[in-house]
Amino acid sequence: MFDRVVSNGLIVTAEATCRGDVGIADGRIAAIGTGLVGREVIDASGMLVLPGAVDEHVHLQMPLGDLISSDDFTTGTVAAACGGTTTVIDFAEPRPGQSLVEALAERRAEAEGRVVIDYGLHMTLCRADDQTLAEVPASIESGAASFKLYMAYDRLRLGDGDLLRVLAALRAHGGRALVHAENHHAIAYLTAQALAEGRTGPENHPRTRPALMEAEAVHRLLALAWLTDTPVVLAHLSCALGLEAVRAARARNQRVWVETCPQYLLLDEQEYHRPGFEGAKFVMAPPLRSEADRAALWAGLAAGEVDTVATDHCPFFYATQKTRGLADFSRIPGGAPGVETRLALLYTYGVRSGRLSPQRWVEVCCTHPARRFGLAPRKGTLSVGADADLVIFDPERRVPLSYRTLHQNVDYCPYEGWEVHGYPILVLSRGEVIVRDGEFVGTAGRGRFVPTAPMESDGD
Amino acid sequence: MFDRVVSNGLIVTAEATCRGDVGIADGRIAAIGTGLVGREVIDASGMLVLPGAVDEHVHLQMPLGDLISSDDFTTGTVAAACGGTTTVIDFAEPRPGQSLVEALAERRAEAEGRVVIDYGLHMTLCRADDQTLAEVPASIESGAASFKLYMAYDRLRLGDGDLLRVLAALRAHGGRALVHAENHHAIAYLTAQALAEGRTGPENHPRTRPALMEAEAVHRLLALAWLTDTPVVLAHLSCALGLEAVRAARARNQRVWVETCPQYLLLDEQEYHRPGFEGAKFVMAPPLRSEADRAALWAGLAAGEVDTVATDHCPFFYATQKTRGLADFSRIPGGAPGVETRLALLYTYGVRSGRLSPQRWVEVCCTHPARRFGLAPRKGTLSVGADADLVIFDPERRVPLSYRTLHQNVDYCPYEGWEVHGYPILVLSRGEVIVRDGEFVGTAGRGRFVPTAPMESDGD
Amino acid sequence: MFDRVVSNGLIVTAEATCRGDVGIADGRIAAIGTGLVGREVIDASGMLVLPGAVDEHVHLQMPLGDLISSDDFTTGTVAAACGGTTTVIDFAEPRPGQSLVEALAERRAEAEGRVVIDYGLHMTLCRADDQTLAEVPASIESGAASFKLYMAYDRLRLGDGDLLRVLAALRAHGGRALVHAENHHAIAYLTAQALAEGRTGPENHPRTRPALMEAEAVHRLLALAWLTDTPVVLAHLSCALGLEAVRAARARNQRVWVETCPQYLLLDEQEYHRPGFEGAKFVMAPPLRSEADRAALWAGLAAGEVDTVATDHCPFFYATQKTRGLADFSRIPGGAPGVETRLALLYTYGVRSGRLSPQRWVEVCCTHPARRFGLAPRKGTLSVGADADLVIFDPERRVPLSYRTLHQNVDYCPYEGWEVHGYPILVLSRGEVIVRDGEFVGTAGRGRFVPTAPMESDGD
Amino acid sequence: MFDRVVSNGLIVTAEATCRGDVGIADGRIAAIGTGLVGREVIDASGMLVLPGAVDEHVHLQMPLGDLISSDDFTTGTVAAACGGTTTVIDFAEPRPGQSLVEALAERRAEAEGRVVIDYGLHMTLCRADDQTLAEVPASIESGAASFKLYMAYDRLRLGDGDLLRVLAALRAHGGRALVHAENHHAIAYLTAQALAEGRTGPENHPRTRPALMEAEAVHRLLALAWLTDTPVVLAHLSCALGLEAVRAARARNQRVWVETCPQYLLLDEQEYHRPGFEGAKFVMAPPLRSEADRAALWAGLAAGEVDTVATDHCPFFYATQKTRGLADFSRIPGGAPGVETRLALLYTYGVRSGRLSPQRWVEVCCTHPARRFGLAPRKGTLSVGADADLVIFDPERRVPLSYRTLHQNVDYCPYEGWEVHGYPILVLSRGEVIVRDGEFVGTAGRGRFVPTAPMESDGD
Repeated sequence: MFDRVVSNGLIVTAEATCRGDVGIADGRIAAIGTGLVGREVIDASGMLVLPGAVDEHVHLQMPLGDLISSDDFTTGTVAAACGGTTTVIDFAEPRPGQSLVEALAERRAEAEGRVVIDYGLHMTLCRADDQTLAEVPASIESGAASFKLYMAYDRLRLGDGDLLRVLAALRAHGGRALVHAENHHAIAYLTAQALAEGRTGPENHPRTRPALMEAEAVHRLLALAWLTDTPVVLAHLSCALGLEAVRAARARNQRVWVETCPQYLLLDEQEYHRPGFEGAKFVMAPPLRSEADRAALWAGLAAGEVDTVATDHCPFFYATQKTRGLADFSRIPGGAPGVETRLALLYTYGVRSGRLSPQRWVEVCCTHPARRFGLAPRKGTLSVGADADLVIFDPERRVPLSYRTLHQNVDYCPYEGWEVHGYPILVLSRGEVIVRDGEFVGTAGRGRFVPTAPMESDGD
Repeated sequence: MFDRVVSNGLIVTAEATCRGDVGIADGRIAAIGTGLVGREVIDASGMLVLPGAVDEHVHLQMPLGDLISSDDFTTGTVAAACGGTTTVIDFAEPRPGQSLVEALAERRAEAEGRVVIDYGLHMTLCRADDQTLAEVPASIESGAASFKLYMAYDRLRLGDGDLLRVLAALRAHGGRALVHAENHHAIAYLTAQALAEGRTGPENHPRTRPALMEAEAVHRLLALAWLTDTPVVLAHLSCALGLEAVRAARARNQRVWVETCPQYLLLDEQEYHRPGFEGAKFVMAPPLRSEADRAALWAGLAAGEVDTVATDHCPFFYATQKTRGLADFSRIPGGAPGVETRLALLYTYGVRSGRLSPQRWVEVCCTHPARRFGLAPRKGTLSVGADADLVIFDPERRVPLSYRTLHQNVDYCPYEGWEVHGYPILVLSRGEVIVRDGEFVGTAGRGRFVPTAPMESDGD
Repeated sequence: MFDRVVSNGLIVTAEATCRGDVGIADGRIAAIGTGLVGREVIDASGMLVLPGAVDEHVHLQMPLGDLISSDDFTTGTVAAACGGTTTVIDFAEPRPGQSLVEALAERRAEAEGRVVIDYGLHMTLCRADDQTLAEVPASIESGAASFKLYMAYDRLRLGDGDLLRVLAALRAHGGRALVHAENHHAIAYLTAQALAEGRTGPENHPRTRPALMEAEAVHRLLALAWLTDTPVVLAHLSCALGLEAVRAARARNQRVWVETCPQYLLLDEQEYHRPGFEGAKFVMAPPLRSEADRAALWAGLAAGEVDTVATDHCPFFYATQKTRGLADFSRIPGGAPGVETRLALLYTYGVRSGRLSPQRWVEVCCTHPARRFGLAPRKGTLSVGADADLVIFDPERRVPLSYRTLHQNVDYCPYEGWEVHGYPILVLSRGEVIVRDGEFVGTAGRGRFVPTAPMESDGD
Repeated sequence: MFDRVVSNGLIVTAEATCRGDVGIADGRIAAIGTGLVGREVIDASGMLVLPGAVDEHVHLQMPLGDLISSDDFTTGTVAAACGGTTTVIDFAEPRPGQSLVEALAERRAEAEGRVVIDYGLHMTLCRADDQTLAEVPASIESGAASFKLYMAYDRLRLGDGDLLRVLAALRAHGGRALVHAENHHAIAYLTAQALAEGRTGPENHPRTRPALMEAEAVHRLLALAWLTDTPVVLAHLSCALGLEAVRAARARNQRVWVETCPQYLLLDEQEYHRPGFEGAKFVMAPPLRSEADRAALWAGLAAGEVDTVATDHCPFFYATQKTRGLADFSRIPGGAPGVETRLALLYTYGVRSGRLSPQRWVEVCCTHPARRFGLAPRKGTLSVGADADLVIFDPERRVPLSYRTLHQNVDYCPYEGWEVHGYPILVLSRGEVIVRDGEFVGTAGRGRFVPTAPMESDGD
């Protein structure tokens, strides 16, 4: 007798699709079988049952100068949950003088009481002094075993020497690296040039961050990581040229994984040419690219060259926040919403369109994000003993996307007016129903911190 | 109450590793959970429990001129079973004038009554006339939905025009392509040259089949498959240059998968320099390559660039069959044994050495071979409803490899004297124990033909 | 006292540009200097003085089934001369049963008495039997040291095995290889497909000869040539993908040179979409490609990756010969005129547009073609002792191109209506003025056979 | 009646080889012909006559902290002259606060009165402030139209942003860029690591400057230059990976030229494993590489992918200067002698070994260095009106190389004990014999500054 049984669904995992029941006990998956008996039964006939999705890359209530990203830990995780995501990984960013462990504690304190799903935290390493690097093991022990490195952004970026020091420290301790790769100086140069020429509109954003300079940073990072023999994950790869640099590194037997995002698969640079200031909605880094880049990312995702799809969810209100950059595109806060729409978009444009198998869909949205960051098999899988994070997904439900109906706390949706075909209708987190018929029914603060584990020698 | 329960093992699948029981009923996996109750219990404490391995590429009792490969359908499948493989895919090769469906029936007749595990059959397409291509749908309907194409070997090979016709036909009907890619003419030229110069020993075998000419064939095949938009699987890729050609095709968004074999991962060309005629033991096509090639294949396997590990098992007795080529290396029957040792070798040199995660090990040996050839989820997975093909694998068992103790019907082992660390100790096929403590305990003829399914649009 | 002095011109060679006089004696260049005194003085003030151009690839009075290319040895060489070309290399093609030396003699007999400028002959090797290969040294001794190999065309093409045999023979004897690289079988397949679908117009010509299949043939050829260590020249490279294959070969330290043609630099595939049957005027092999291909060829030419610009001149009358393919594009005789316009087009669109330096212009049109085929320094240079083949080129002369005014014996010009800026106004061959103010003033039959020399070890 | 005639030599230029006389008047080449009559005749029977070689990259009396490179403008140019080099390009390096034009004037003042052959100066741009960039046109007008940019070395290097600013300024004004490409931060990191581990010997020098990090810098530079559309010359390319990055840039139609040096063609990393401190003799940046790198550079030089061979001559006494780094390899002054041996080494190992044609030898040592830096046709050619800088080269003279007999002011020779086969025996500079039978017979201070010209649109 299980606490709860999700019965008769089409169970979809990275391994296979099968018809059956999922038995839940004590918040964990206790059994997968048929004819399971539970105190409570959720009928999943005609539905897909999949592991709760894992979004390895979100920025909730993130300070950005005088602004803060518009989804806080509650609204953001509610939106995630409604979209079928049951674990997010956000970021802890140490302030000057603050230790990594203190930063982690501080960020956890911000999240506790607010998050509605489980969450992990990447530790941002924006300095490479001896003391900071000496704290890497303590960060790992405290549950932040993955580290965000920036090659762009003034306050955050690491120069090549610092990158080497950090990569070597991560290699020594099994820390995982998630890297934002763009050439900072080229962006600064091109931005200054644009502004000097009076080109201030959002359409200048992509022009100042060309794909070639993302690929340059990828190429450079992979050369540096080769020196230190450090596996790395490339955050939000957006272009074919960057993927080509990854292939070159793999050709020298290097370990590198690639994250992309739905926006790079589904949108392209023509969005920047919307009338007026509308392009600001799509100001993010890297920027949206060409159709050929989109095709290359889809193909790479299908072929296994791209490993995970995260969202880089980082929303700002169009009406009141994006407008900071009305007179200067470089002051537009960068980022866009997405945490709620990932799973349905990838189903509609991936599985339905024949680009991805159901297995690959679950793999890149659930299983691999968890594995890549040390949350597997507790998260991202439907294996016995795993947290009972489940999504009941109606493959026939058609949902028009609109910021008015989505739960993300922001006044626009990049996919406004699109219709997805297939949608989560019921979501469980550790066995508890938190979304029913598309609405959040849980309580704020129920989410827990999940530590990320360091790398094993197998690097997988 | 299940028929049988494998209890308390460490269940390892492509998705995750978890501790639990596997419940079996009616020859199928009925449940995965804990505390499962069965009429019979197999205690798997301390053991790994994985899906029965799938070997997509074996040649049992294969005629080769006046010879026949030395493992028949019984000895070969017994050896497979003892090594943890519960499904093999062999080949049906139509004789001149024989229809595809007749060839399939004839080959099935040879296997029936003999095979001890389930088996599928690839249909060899060695001609491309209209009538043969018109039979492709019938072959698929009859359960042979994958097709072997040869670019080398006199009697079998297809020229580029025929390849195009075949690839187009497969594309039209969802047939799967498994292609042997080497440049036939270069081999013939180099062989004639070697013999004309009196170079007759087995060390000339690799010199007449250079890696560049395998890569050339891969490159050409992928160009042709691009024209017809046909996904293909490359059989037994052996070299870094070939993998580079695959990367180039993926860079133009082409769908291609790669099979390699344990021998290309573990052995290299120095074997051909053994004293006397010993090199003949390693005469196979493609030949063993360099250490750098080995490293590239391991890295590609870990990175997901290489998809499956099959054996190309095709043994000939060293003492009595390989000797056909004593005076002329080109008459040495090509092929080597391997069907029994794959799983343990990949565990020892893959998982134990840190090159592969347990998930990846199962994926490349079990799950992906089944998926790639339309046998999933029935084979290669531990999902509910799948055939209860299971391997109980003792991760600590040390087994010295020797042809004397292995079950393959051949008088040598390419890995003679090597020790593997981890070995199957009990194997179930459709719920029946067929190997116990390393010895086959089933009955000949119990194996069944499993049809391969054609491709879905998602190509996965 | 020289026989003749070309005085006061701007002498342009592959080495440098300088102001000076060229003194001619006994049909050879006797001196370059200033203040030279001659019995006859040609004032070249304001003019460029360059070596007579060398066109390494022309097909005059070439039989093609029931047709013959429309320029005979007289009209074709008159046109060449008027365009500033003082040496052409045509082809000798042995008939079945005919020896190479006989074929050479027969073709020389066709040319003698007709040609108005000096000419060489490539020997076409369309078979690879032992006897033919044994004749290679005799061909070289008889003055045909370069050999044309075809990978496409039914009657002419060599399979890979034959290619290897031929390449090895050329390597042994220093024979030079000029290779037409396209995948014959893919062309045949696509052509049959087009015709079967009722697509019969000339716009189908490029669709049946895709760039990828030219690149495939280049890649394959270079792999084969690597096996035999034979340097090769790629005839009429038309696409960026082909150039990429060349780079890959150079990356493995292979010797390969590249010829392209003005049509691949200046025209693109949109010509095939002209109304009616007009696209037939541009039916040639390889076909015209994309704008991106054009750009890649210009860049490669400037960078030294592409070595020579020849014309592949092979005209057929639009009104009466191209029409053979009215109902079937594959029967359109392939080829276009060009021998007369090369030098002026390359000056206008190369030098004037800033793509090429004057040195590079002369190098690719004059010096390198002669060097690549063993005619240097006698041809293609302005060095002392060289044949006094000179072009007096007016850099300011504007000439509208039209088949009505050009001397090529054909009823259309691919560049009809274009205007070139810069044109030959006076041409000398072995010291004799043969073109004056744009019109031929010499006599038919004055041209002589110039033997091509085999390769030296330096391969240059 | 010429002032002087070099008679009856085998004249070797980038264009051709011919037998003839060179007539000289007023220090310039007045004629090339036969039977020329001069007041003075130099019999060159049996000799090669070529343009004086141009060494685009030398560091004479160069301050390096407390040291100064050991050849001053007199000893260095005497050595150059004795080796057949009649023009060198050294560097002007502005001190902090000093304008470019002042730096040029100061460096010219150091050279005047000392140099024995003509010389140019690259302007080192080690800062990118607006004022400095505003001085670029003045530098060009003053005769320094080429600019040295460093990506490594603390005091000299430009970050990516500064590189962009400089490259854009050069593009605007036609300034030529010569770039030292190595990743500074990686070198610093690896050096600190080596020293921290107590690895202080010269064998650590190459380990701290891996080829991959040179290739990284090349790749990055070419990405930046792509943004600004600036042609660049890569200084002293040393490795195959760097050449691969060049090919990738050319594949996107970018203009880039490559310089290499004899040491990278002829020596390899095993020199660093000489006993004791001897490896210090070969400490230079980039370091010597592998045999495979050497082969790739030779092939690239023959194929036209590498454009020029310069020396980077920068000698330091082994006994008294290199010893600065006895306890710390990173303090070994970097550089080696070479200005005297280039032409003979390239003849012996290039032309005699069949790797280069005589034309290519002259092109890469004489003609292209002059053309690439705006000294053509005055230097590097044997064209009428060019400076009468000539080398009479005895192709049969065998000369053992030793620092004892060479004129370079340094106590070792990297090629000590090697024998070259072919050597300059007489050298003319502007018509004056300055080297006779291997010894300098001119006067110090006779050399003149030759301005370098900016780029033309043809970029050649």
